[in-house]
Amino acid sequence: MMDQLADRARELDGADQLATWRDEFVITDPDLAYLDGNSLGMTPRRSLDRMREVMESEWAGGLIGSWEHWVDLPARVGDALAPLIGAEPGEVVVHDSVSVNLAQLVHAALAMRPDRRVIAIDPADFPSDRYIVDGIARTLGLEVRRDADPVLDDVAVMVRSHVDYRTAEVTDMAVGTARATAAGALVIWDLSHSAGVLEVDLGAAGAELAVGCTYKFLNGGPGSPGFSYVSTDLVGQVEQPIQGWFGHRDQFAMGPDFEPHADARRLLIGTPSVLALAATAVGVDLTAEAGIDLVAAKARALTAFALECCQDVGLDSPTPTDPFRRGGHVSVRHPDARELTRRLATEHRVVADFRTPDLIRLGCSPLTTRFVDVHRGVAALAGLTN
Amino acid sequence: MMDQLADRARELDGADQLATWRDEFVITDPDLAYLDGNSLGMTPRRSLDRMREVMESEWAGGLIGSWEHWVDLPARVGDALAPLIGAEPGEVVVHDSVSVNLAQLVHAALAMRPDRRVIAIDPADFPSDRYIVDGIARTLGLEVRRDADPVLDDVAVMVRSHVDYRTAEVTDMAVGTARATAAGALVIWDLSHSAGVLEVDLGAAGAELAVGCTYKFLNGGPGSPGFSYVSTDLVGQVEQPIQGWFGHRDQFAMGPDFEPHADARRLLIGTPSVLALAATAVGVDLTAEAGIDLVAAKARALTAFALECCQDVGLDSPTPTDPFRRGGHVSVRHPDARELTRRLATEHRVVADFRTPDLIRLGCSPLTTRFVDVHRGVAALAGLTN
Repeated sequence: MMDQLADRARELDGADQLATWRDEFVITDPDLAYLDGNSLGMTPRRSLDRMREVMESEWAGGLIGSWEHWVDLPARVGDALAPLIGAEPGEVVVHDSVSVNLAQLVHAALAMRPDRRVIAIDPADFPSDRYIVDGIARTLGLEVRRDADPVLDDVAVMVRSHVDYRTAEVTDMAVGTARATAAGALVIWDLSHSAGVLEVDLGAAGAELAVGCTYKFLNGGPGSPGFSYVSTDLVGQVEQPIQGWFGHRDQFAMGPDFEPHADARRLLIGTPSVLALAATAVGVDLTAEAGIDLVAAKARALTAFALECCQDVGLDSPTPTDPFRRGGHVSVRHPDARELTRRLATEHRVVADFRTPDLIRLGCSPLTTRFVDVHRGVAALAGLTN
Repeated sequence: MMDQLADRARELDGADQLATWRDEFVITDPDLAYLDGNSLGMTPRRSLDRMREVMESEWAGGLIGSWEHWVDLPARVGDALAPLIGAEPGEVVVHDSVSVNLAQLVHAALAMRPDRRVIAIDPADFPSDRYIVDGIARTLGLEVRRDADPVLDDVAVMVRSHVDYRTAEVTDMAVGTARATAAGALVIWDLSHSAGVLEVDLGAAGAELAVGCTYKFLNGGPGSPGFSYVSTDLVGQVEQPIQGWFGHRDQFAMGPDFEPHADARRLLIGTPSVLALAATAVGVDLTAEAGIDLVAAKARALTAFALECCQDVGLDSPTPTDPFRRGGHVSVRHPDARELTRRLATEHRVVADFRTPDLIRLGCSPLTTRFVDVHRGVAALAGLTN
């Protein structure tokens, strides 16, 4: 059967509308099956050119004068990202790390619910999110409710990943938001595993607060900044817990008091890395150009094909079979996951991702992953486990 | 007199032991007098090569595997920076922005003084530092004591810039620390205007907490990350307020609880920008290679010469005349400072820095600033004001 699936992989690649986007990326090893774009996206060719331009023309050539246009980068990249996640202009800023941005929004949400003393989070959610929540609760003497489906009546804010980083299961954002709103709680959505690969629609879901990362499916580069989203309806109530000068509406006035920007720019903190933001902008623009609807459709097709291959060779996967209930990766469960992931890379030129204790993640990044890569990855894994 | 000073500028450049270090930087306009290295240092040539290597070999070539060595960058660059500021290995990490890092240390200091409810800061200190302090006080319901020389008996933590960003006046760190310690208060020193240009000695001063930036005298690039310093004696007591996964001693275990690193790495938060850190490393290494003692001596010589030129042409400066009481810039006070700064750039190819309401800052960055630049800057300013 896997032979027939190999033929089909080639057919699917041949019919793929997005196939030529792979040419926009640096391919140093054509035989590498890179199935880890959900941890670090590949390098856009344009990013090489752009980084050279930033280094030589803007930093070395323009020196301090370049800040005139750099200063707006967090908002400009945010506005470019906004349509990919169903946000409006002024609702998204790209800055700092997901962890810092999450900490800010948790503090801001708590300040909006001063009579509530509980933060809810799924105990299986991404570790950094859990640690951030625990640290804030310790600092402020609050309770953390660790529950995948918590009672919300006394919860100030719930933190929830849109896509589970292990299983790729999607949480329904509209349902989750409505349920929290009915209970008087706020929700912060973490879009780290959905931005740039799913058709996220924050506006339609009624979402008010979100964060996410840009170094995975958005190909922004290693450690590229996270983003913060605040709905226009809510932003006037957001008090920034870390109010740095970039959040000030007139930062170079250097006046006595902090006066926040009217929109999401109030969440900016200190001086952002221009090098990081310049690369992020390229990655975001590439996905926007390709079209998030086509990108999301290819993600569904790639993950469907991955699941089909897994089923064919008898590999166990916790990833949902409903294409609209899963993100851009497929996980395989195996007790030897760590060792298998290592051997995939060293013996088969297949790069996947181990997640403790027993998962091998196969990331399907639509602008760079080929169906033949998926097939080869699963076939290699099957060979190692048989 | 200014003619004789011009001759002397050439003599001083001829005798300057650090003169050849300017060749390590990209010079796109040899006639530009760039006196703004205290806002954004120039571009090291090695940074161009290093950034190309990071983009092409490490990101594009190594992909996710490169995180094996990237993951230690915040600590490695911190250890390279440590000797420049009198810190020990493991006491400094380079990460996030100065504002975020300051917010972390303020929270950590407050947690160490739970019975005190006052944060002290000079009302003339750098705006972002003041705003950060105000935001934390608002969040936690604390008092901010805005006083350049505050009573400290009930103060939990005082935030203080080592070098005043306007006048360049140095605060004696040992005296300030001793005074605070005697009163039971902690001090967080902001070294943004002293790291990489003065012989800072945190250890000898008994300093326990500090932050600073790397994009000024350390030539780390636009918006390069800040740093955090915690003395080895104190670090065990530091509870991280924003406990992201990079602060975890075993981050990929992804366990239920946050277990901090034993050293300053506990202050790391989310995934750091590799591009930003790679450029920062180059800048830090250049200053270390040149030798901070020579760098600091040249800073004193450059600023002494700048003050002499100012005096010669009758320009008013609030910068201390004692060479050990001033940082790496000289300020000129003039009611038309904003317009004069603009005209220096457009009419004379002299880049200085306006600081509201009436200061023109002339930055003397020892690896790149020539004595002739200083002379030409002051002469041009004199011409515009006569």
